[in-house]
Amino acid sequence: MNNLFLVIIAGGSGTRFWPKSTSRRPKQLLSFSSASEPQAPSLLSQTLNRFDGLVPGGAQGQKHRMIITTQLLSEAVAQNAPQVTILAEPQGRNTAPCVYWGARAVAEKDPRGIMLVMPADHYISQPEKFRTSVRAAAEWAQVHDDLVTLGVQPTRPETGYGYLRIGSALPGGTCRKVDAFVEKPNAERAQEFLRAGNYLWNGGMFVWRADVILKAFDEFMPEMKRAWESSGGDLQKAYPQMTATSIDYGIMEKARNVVSFPLDCGWDDLGSWISLEGAADVLQARREGGVVTGGELLAVESDGNIVDAPGRLVAILGVSDLIVVEHGQAILVAHKEKAQDIKKIVDRLKTVRPDLV
Amino acid sequence: MNNLFLVIIAGGSGTRFWPKSTSRRPKQLLSFSSASEPQAPSLLSQTLNRFDGLVPGGAQGQKHRMIITTQLLSEAVAQNAPQVTILAEPQGRNTAPCVYWGARAVAEKDPRGIMLVMPADHYISQPEKFRTSVRAAAEWAQVHDDLVTLGVQPTRPETGYGYLRIGSALPGGTCRKVDAFVEKPNAERAQEFLRAGNYLWNGGMFVWRADVILKAFDEFMPEMKRAWESSGGDLQKAYPQMTATSIDYGIMEKARNVVSFPLDCGWDDLGSWISLEGAADVLQARREGGVVTGGELLAVESDGNIVDAPGRLVAILGVSDLIVVEHGQAILVAHKEKAQDIKKIVDRLKTVRPDLV
Repeated sequence: MNNLFLVIIAGGSGTRFWPKSTSRRPKQLLSFSSASEPQAPSLLSQTLNRFDGLVPGGAQGQKHRMIITTQLLSEAVAQNAPQVTILAEPQGRNTAPCVYWGARAVAEKDPRGIMLVMPADHYISQPEKFRTSVRAAAEWAQVHDDLVTLGVQPTRPETGYGYLRIGSALPGGTCRKVDAFVEKPNAERAQEFLRAGNYLWNGGMFVWRADVILKAFDEFMPEMKRAWESSGGDLQKAYPQMTATSIDYGIMEKARNVVSFPLDCGWDDLGSWISLEGAADVLQARREGGVVTGGELLAVESDGNIVDAPGRLVAILGVSDLIVVEHGQAILVAHKEKAQDIKKIVDRLKTVRPDLV
Repeated sequence: MNNLFLVIIAGGSGTRFWPKSTSRRPKQLLSFSSASEPQAPSLLSQTLNRFDGLVPGGAQGQKHRMIITTQLLSEAVAQNAPQVTILAEPQGRNTAPCVYWGARAVAEKDPRGIMLVMPADHYISQPEKFRTSVRAAAEWAQVHDDLVTLGVQPTRPETGYGYLRIGSALPGGTCRKVDAFVEKPNAERAQEFLRAGNYLWNGGMFVWRADVILKAFDEFMPEMKRAWESSGGDLQKAYPQMTATSIDYGIMEKARNVVSFPLDCGWDDLGSWISLEGAADVLQARREGGVVTGGELLAVESDGNIVDAPGRLVAILGVSDLIVVEHGQAILVAHKEKAQDIKKIVDRLKTVRPDLV
């Protein structure tokens, strides 16, 4: 299919994986090593590579592949993505304006072009299975005026993701109607969702024709078109007037033509250091003493640790449930229960050591 | 006084401060930064510098300064001590043979030369006060046939050191008779010693004339002279036949002419990572969150940690009582209670990563 257009959303700042991530090197530019890829490329590079053979690349990449990112990151992103069009947001305004910009850019080239909207920073261990699902979704979008989501088959009662409640199978048997978008559940509901079987993780991956999503914008967010038209079609100028909200909230939760293709391809969004434990099987990162996504771990009388220190040997003795990370000039040792407080460290460093955040 | 001869004993291997110390870089070659010396020289260099102005150095260093070390370390030691005679032991045989060798070497130059026998790896924060005490001890040894020890005025109920029980003051008022050498006490006895006031730490620092100590060897360890004579005065050959014991056990505990000059000069022997807490005041190394002897510490909801990571920022979040050390390719995170088990790490690394130990 030569009418596929990849739109990667690669904004985001970098506090949750500090010190590996920083404001200038957020998650999408990081690599987490795995048994199958000890020298893994960045998550963004992996995301791009995943579409080789599906979306035209190489000399055609400039036309068929685009990355929407922030101005701060555009240079670093461009280094990771040499043959891709980079769109630098004038300011971060959540995902709905990104998608609108992407849809306009695709429609200019092919009004019925099929957009693959993808986050830049997810991990997928079985890219071939992923491509098979994306191809099926694209073929569906080609002939149906639907908004297709790629929902991820849950493998654990995860409370960190939103869910899609799916309904009856549509003709063909794989595609399912999406009945509802469900907020992040508590542990009990997450268990129910897993048992029930009709819930998928909402991974923020979408497949649709440019004309279909633009029509949805006109229906649910008509201010987007007004902003675009009043700026004479200059998205850079229109951007500040666009509603800063997510595509989920702005469009997906309201639209009635939402369907889903379930993905079962070893997917994880790697949301924080803690999430690496959930993703450890996918990353094949379990070792004696904990989960290791960089470097070597020698653990004595220690368990449940999360270690990322590429090129280093980390010896852990008599301590458990720690996050131990080394990057550049910084070393982090945090209790796992405090993972959400890493931003406290980052905030304090902003004044005393801005070079490190 | 131009008849002083410095004999530094610098053997020792390097497991207790791993990964900062290794077999080829034991404690005496390490530096621990302090507030007054953020770029501190190695403990060995500090030991040598401490005698400047007291023992001839520079061009005279080859004659007046010697370091007894192991063959493995002799090259590294020589780099730290360019103008000093290095004596490399054929094999490690504890301190008595070292002292005998040193005494013979001094006696060759000056039979009544005054030996200053010093460990290479202690920390002293007030070198001027130290020199004053050494000078007084040397003046005493010049005119008395005594074995002078420099006993350290205790500042805490330390259970990691041996003690000297001192008796009546001798003429002059500073020098005290030593009544007994006391083994490392338990906590209760250490408290008693501190209260009693007539106990000093045995720091392994001695001042005596070569003829006096050689006479003591003849009395209490006559086999030393026999070994030396049977090898025709070649200490390298004699060494393997010498009794492998400490100077304390072989001579000092038996001799009756032992006296002590009390030292009050901010002394610590820095025995292990844990000992840095005891030495923190001397090193001026107390920071929010723990004791820091290298690098910067940013501690959030953390206390009682020991950190050594020169050139690094270590951020610690929600964890206490840890030892965190970075050196070369290795990072150690250990619970303080397990400090004595660091050798388990070193032992395991000997087979899998011998480059790191």
